[in-house]
Amino acid sequence: MKSPDNVAPFVAIDVDYERRVRESFSRQGLMKHLGARLTELEAGRIEIRAAYRDELTQQHGYFHAGVSGSLADCACGYAAFTLMPPDASVLTVEYKMNLLAPAEGEELIARARVVRSGMTLKVCMADVYARKTDAETHCATMLATIMCLRGKPDRR
Amino acid sequence: MKSPDNVAPFVAIDVDYERRVRESFSRQGLMKHLGARLTELEAGRIEIRAAYRDELTQQHGYFHAGVSGSLADCACGYAAFTLMPPDASVLTVEYKMNLLAPAEGEELIARARVVRSGMTLKVCMADVYARKTDAETHCATMLATIMCLRGKPDRR
Amino acid sequence: MKSPDNVAPFVAIDVDYERRVRESFSRQGLMKHLGARLTELEAGRIEIRAAYRDELTQQHGYFHAGVSGSLADCACGYAAFTLMPPDASVLTVEYKMNLLAPAEGEELIARARVVRSGMTLKVCMADVYARKTDAETHCATMLATIMCLRGKPDRR
Amino acid sequence: MKSPDNVAPFVAIDVDYERRVRESFSRQGLMKHLGARLTELEAGRIEIRAAYRDELTQQHGYFHAGVSGSLADCACGYAAFTLMPPDASVLTVEYKMNLLAPAEGEELIARARVVRSGMTLKVCMADVYARKTDAETHCATMLATIMCLRGKPDRR
Repeated sequence: MKSPDNVAPFVAIDVDYERRVRESFSRQGLMKHLGARLTELEAGRIEIRAAYRDELTQQHGYFHAGVSGSLADCACGYAAFTLMPPDASVLTVEYKMNLLAPAEGEELIARARVVRSGMTLKVCMADVYARKTDAETHCATMLATIMCLRGKPDRR
Repeated sequence: MKSPDNVAPFVAIDVDYERRVRESFSRQGLMKHLGARLTELEAGRIEIRAAYRDELTQQHGYFHAGVSGSLADCACGYAAFTLMPPDASVLTVEYKMNLLAPAEGEELIARARVVRSGMTLKVCMADVYARKTDAETHCATMLATIMCLRGKPDRR
Repeated sequence: MKSPDNVAPFVAIDVDYERRVRESFSRQGLMKHLGARLTELEAGRIEIRAAYRDELTQQHGYFHAGVSGSLADCACGYAAFTLMPPDASVLTVEYKMNLLAPAEGEELIARARVVRSGMTLKVCMADVYARKTDAETHCATMLATIMCLRGKPDRR
Repeated sequence: MKSPDNVAPFVAIDVDYERRVRESFSRQGLMKHLGARLTELEAGRIEIRAAYRDELTQQHGYFHAGVSGSLADCACGYAAFTLMPPDASVLTVEYKMNLLAPAEGEELIARARVVRSGMTLKVCMADVYARKTDAETHCATMLATIMCLRGKPDRR
């Protein structure tokens, strides 16, 4: 029942993708407002983290599912964006997220990777972990469809 | 090709559901941080609104999909919560959202309704609109599964 | 809390869409194998029905969720296909389905409609009903993303 | 950016789970009708295969997305069922599937695993591969929520 590894090593067609991703991320008012930081970035993979604050909670004091969703969606979008050409914009078509455990901890970590990289559409997965000291709890998983809009550079 | 109307008029089993929903909503740090307000509330239906601010944007200056997702998830959860007994907590199991148009406007409005109300699981739908003066653009639609946890009152 | 009606009256850009949809449907081996019939067809809307048979059951004797999913996916795809140009193929990008009630009855009915019709992507919804004599039970709801592939006519 | 392995080794609480799964699978009329076989089975994991036939095709002659969905849903349900107690029934709450590549080949293979095993709800993932001679193409991925109904043994 062994499956072939479905995480191919992707190659970016734009060598300057890191600068492009960081610049776009810095323009997202919401990420700043949530205290989110882009902590890892490579072709086809992104990690985003946010420290615990009362401003990010749901009614029981855990991280709100909306924060998990925002970080995971953003990580999926930029994981896809690393593989796009310089003249393209990135657009989330849709995503689905399952919540697996309460997001309780000092930090929320969203890790996304591209699963299938088509010309127009890229399918991505993200997993969200809540870190407490050194232990990480897997608290959510996302499956997302991201679109590449050619000829519309990603500017405000 | 006419379908029977799938939005049944639901009856709350807890007459005090409005107080319970408002109290729980007020404990959500994220909703306050996003400037979200609970603007309508009835058995099986919730509306949440947030005014435009730079803190809620994605890289092109529109409302971030994470804000649409947070408001719609929260509206689905509380729409389900209106139909739960007093001793229950509400938990989002999963949701899926399609983005339909750029969320550009002065205000974002998420309207959720219960579609199927089982004892343990409630299925909800939400639509998100961006309002510009008097016109509303339908910018996202969500399908969510919400769980009722009996014997665990919704307290922090 | 009234929402603007989100089912716009769509206009087909190919006047010959009915012939195109029926011809494509007739080439689907699975639809024939499931005994499925295309029972209604207009611009942006499709209805597909299948009569109850032991060959369509899950372990308790109801219609299998796989049949609900197959009919609903197919109805979404062809609802989108009615709005495509003559030189296009239709492709399902993804779908999500919630099961609402046991699919028990003499006939399963999937009704799909286009919710948002973009050039490349069309978002569709489908509802699945199980008919028993004259009563219909709403047993599943689907949200799907369908892609229009230009320059690749839909032929085998 | 290393994530903890999210596929825990699950332990079945019912030692007789294999017999229970095989017996339930054999009652599914649809699986027989699609020519599907349960080819691997262990605690928390299931593999189902179906050979190519004209009866399983979409309009271009590939495996129909409905077949991928049926096999993957069924594999998710039984992967969850391996971890349930003897007096329980299994119920699909919802699933979401992304199609990654045309399902072209001699055989379709759905491999499912439990990702999170709660008492009432189990979250599963499935990947679908189309096999052509010895090469497998990853053609779909599913994320599903499965429910355990206690006190309702899985009988027809």
